[in-house]
Amino acid sequence: MSLLENLPAERVTSPHPLVDTAGRVVDISGIPIGEGAPPALIAGPCAVESAAQIDQAARLAAAGGARLLRGGAYKPRTSPYSFQGVGARGLGWMRRAADRHGLAMVTEALTDKELPAVAELADMIQVGSRTMHAYGLLKEIGKTGKPVLLKRGFSATIEEWLLAAEYLLQAGAAGVVLCERGIRTFETQTRNTLDLCAVAHLLEHHRLPVIVDPSHAAGRPELVARLSRASLAAGAHGLMIEIHPDPERALSDGDQALTPERYLALGQELVG
Amino acid sequence: MSLLENLPAERVTSPHPLVDTAGRVVDISGIPIGEGAPPALIAGPCAVESAAQIDQAARLAAAGGARLLRGGAYKPRTSPYSFQGVGARGLGWMRRAADRHGLAMVTEALTDKELPAVAELADMIQVGSRTMHAYGLLKEIGKTGKPVLLKRGFSATIEEWLLAAEYLLQAGAAGVVLCERGIRTFETQTRNTLDLCAVAHLLEHHRLPVIVDPSHAAGRPELVARLSRASLAAGAHGLMIEIHPDPERALSDGDQALTPERYLALGQELVG
Amino acid sequence: MSLLENLPAERVTSPHPLVDTAGRVVDISGIPIGEGAPPALIAGPCAVESAAQIDQAARLAAAGGARLLRGGAYKPRTSPYSFQGVGARGLGWMRRAADRHGLAMVTEALTDKELPAVAELADMIQVGSRTMHAYGLLKEIGKTGKPVLLKRGFSATIEEWLLAAEYLLQAGAAGVVLCERGIRTFETQTRNTLDLCAVAHLLEHHRLPVIVDPSHAAGRPELVARLSRASLAAGAHGLMIEIHPDPERALSDGDQALTPERYLALGQELVG
Amino acid sequence: MSLLENLPAERVTSPHPLVDTAGRVVDISGIPIGEGAPPALIAGPCAVESAAQIDQAARLAAAGGARLLRGGAYKPRTSPYSFQGVGARGLGWMRRAADRHGLAMVTEALTDKELPAVAELADMIQVGSRTMHAYGLLKEIGKTGKPVLLKRGFSATIEEWLLAAEYLLQAGAAGVVLCERGIRTFETQTRNTLDLCAVAHLLEHHRLPVIVDPSHAAGRPELVARLSRASLAAGAHGLMIEIHPDPERALSDGDQALTPERYLALGQELVG
Repeated sequence: MSLLENLPAERVTSPHPLVDTAGRVVDISGIPIGEGAPPALIAGPCAVESAAQIDQAARLAAAGGARLLRGGAYKPRTSPYSFQGVGARGLGWMRRAADRHGLAMVTEALTDKELPAVAELADMIQVGSRTMHAYGLLKEIGKTGKPVLLKRGFSATIEEWLLAAEYLLQAGAAGVVLCERGIRTFETQTRNTLDLCAVAHLLEHHRLPVIVDPSHAAGRPELVARLSRASLAAGAHGLMIEIHPDPERALSDGDQALTPERYLALGQELVG
Repeated sequence: MSLLENLPAERVTSPHPLVDTAGRVVDISGIPIGEGAPPALIAGPCAVESAAQIDQAARLAAAGGARLLRGGAYKPRTSPYSFQGVGARGLGWMRRAADRHGLAMVTEALTDKELPAVAELADMIQVGSRTMHAYGLLKEIGKTGKPVLLKRGFSATIEEWLLAAEYLLQAGAAGVVLCERGIRTFETQTRNTLDLCAVAHLLEHHRLPVIVDPSHAAGRPELVARLSRASLAAGAHGLMIEIHPDPERALSDGDQALTPERYLALGQELVG
Repeated sequence: MSLLENLPAERVTSPHPLVDTAGRVVDISGIPIGEGAPPALIAGPCAVESAAQIDQAARLAAAGGARLLRGGAYKPRTSPYSFQGVGARGLGWMRRAADRHGLAMVTEALTDKELPAVAELADMIQVGSRTMHAYGLLKEIGKTGKPVLLKRGFSATIEEWLLAAEYLLQAGAAGVVLCERGIRTFETQTRNTLDLCAVAHLLEHHRLPVIVDPSHAAGRPELVARLSRASLAAGAHGLMIEIHPDPERALSDGDQALTPERYLALGQELVG
Repeated sequence: MSLLENLPAERVTSPHPLVDTAGRVVDISGIPIGEGAPPALIAGPCAVESAAQIDQAARLAAAGGARLLRGGAYKPRTSPYSFQGVGARGLGWMRRAADRHGLAMVTEALTDKELPAVAELADMIQVGSRTMHAYGLLKEIGKTGKPVLLKRGFSATIEEWLLAAEYLLQAGAAGVVLCERGIRTFETQTRNTLDLCAVAHLLEHHRLPVIVDPSHAAGRPELVARLSRASLAAGAHGLMIEIHPDPERALSDGDQALTPERYLALGQELVG
């Protein structure tokens, strides 16, 4: 807790002193996300499937204006019998694809064991919605000293989300970007309910950069363009969009990924 | 159910045949809301308080670019000991204020008894969030033949909302405009959670015009501008915004109303 | 608000002074529900369908130990194309059936118009989950001076529920029995989520009698016995259970009604 | 997935084949939990605080009829500045306390690193609500071959919960006991909403033993007795109750722990 010693006394009464005094921009290997920076587009598939697939996806991501490549080598799937990700080798494929197309790389670690490899290869470590409350893991991720993309737990309150960021910062994370990705409600027509009230609240009252993942929020590709425009209009600092070179053959979440055509048109419109 | 007789046979299998074939624009005393029309701004106080207050509010609403005046003469308050509205006389005050400032008038009826007076004076009848499931009342409102502003029940699914519109249309409503106003979730930092996924879904897959009420969704005035921009960017056909000439003296919901300054700036930006 | 004048001054600071000082037992035409009274069993079909059906249902209800007959002549259905109830004539059928089998009668009014007939024939007026927030209707129901069965709105907080009771008492209701019937959550395997925390809270901290409707909470007959036992074990003052002489032919909600065999066994166990 | 090879072919189509064929009783170092066994009482403090405190708690637990001792050496706290548990040394204190008072020991591991020590000392490993979705951790816990107490994620659907059990069984867990501990809803008067519909559903349609934690569900000690009775009446196979020798001095969650007096009375009533 030594960082706290340097804070002005009046801040220590806050439940999240480091969140309250964090910088308003996070740098990810030279790409700024946050206040004053251009909207950041993060794109990529749900899962890394093969060297070829992630290379194609990276090419597509870059063509649409993305600066960061997303994709999971380890996938937190609801069923143990679903595709669990290609594992460690996927990290290498993804790194090469990102480099070839001039993108930064953001990917998730699900356990402590995977963390060293992820921290070595990725530019930014993602905390997924299902592990936002796994505080032991947060501490380990923070200790890597990398910038972190912190997805909101699908039923986390705003306050719990900020405190998860505090865990990361307190352990040493270089910075935290918050990512709203929809919350769980009674509505079943959409996969989740995108909470732009939370985004507006965070932008008005807190300092951490905030981006939005409309793909997981809606769970349906035809809603992504409208929600992307809405998110940027609300002031979000970026978007994370799921794309796939061939959604019908995706090994996971293919039904919510944008096709290349839709993605390129949207990227052109939003950050082109 | 005679209207159904005129429908092509294949539509009758839908759970909401009239919703599925309704016009995409609703006309409110000459003001169109819906596809192709300019975004409609509806503004006004939570409650009609006095002839002077509603006149001031109407002047302000018009100055900010609103074309419709909102305000309740009858208020559905959680407690019987809260201000319940000024009642029938408020309808007349509101009609005169609307006329003086060139606005259409939209207001709510809470019971069958109030309906004749509301239908006579208002241009559009509002169904509030608390009575969206009161199907007996919906039938009576539909029978007036007026256009209806149908707020989403705060825990209504999209499908229940569409079926409430079907009740209105089936009973004879001249048209229905849907109004998303936030749903009830576990989050407590904001009054409700604005559901733009629902708005995007309705715009992509249905025909009824859709507007957004960011004031009730957020419950806090400093979030209204961001959510208003987001709603229009998502494609909403209009906004309903709570304003008050003097929010600190409002008899109800004053803490979520925009001040004149904030409202004028926002109106100028959005529809000016 | 004249009732308030008789209250000790310190109670007036409560948000629901009449709820806080109400009697702990409500009398329904000689049948007590509340503290110290034996658990009350209310049984009957979702809807009154015919004179014969409600008579059969009443006979069954009485055989299982019920003292009150439930059933709707007017039904609040999500779709306007679903069976809406048989209307006013159903009230007479139900009254005769209740009398023939020695039961009290509880039924719902959806609008002001239906209220005089309901108040004349029923022993207790039901406020349904969909109209708990329709405060105009609550006032009219309270004015009849009858005892009221107040179902919890499916997304009402405990506090809103108590304030709805306050509306009824303030308008003149002879007494209010609260009925927990499940709330809307993210879970979809059951129709609603029965909230026994709310029941326990009400029993520990408030005075109004509380009963439970496990049929609507679960939406599935095979769960009703377990939830009924749980409710009484928690201290609930009664149960409202949906039964049907022939569930497969029911015009509404047949799939959640108990068959005669199941009901008789359960009634025997619980109140036999 | 070798276990699957021994299953009858028709079961493999289930999303959770091992859950569907698991034994109905789980043995925890000689204590059976499940169908036919007497209701199991698990009691103990939220956190292990000191050797003396956990010994006192174990004595109290045993006196009230508990057969298993709960308590956390590692605590998943919402804030990094809250007490995080005493760590590894607490495991030894707890083991000695359990042994001295003839109890089995159940405790939680938050990360892979803590797992070997927990698996060595505890009779049963707890998966907490906040890590139910941390699938990487579930796999590691399953590999220990120990029986597991699987708390429901506070916003997990029943199906997700069963699939988490499938993860554990598939990885090698000796058995899984499900623990319902309340879900997150819009209601704020109680900490969570105890979902006895889920308990009833699991008991009617699945095989895994199910217990209930009323302390975390309600978050308030005065509701625990009613909810405990309700849970057993619904058919739950056991209860997990938070107690503290001196709740006012507890380092975490003291305000929801039962006092010794209340606990002894309840234990006597339920399993005495």
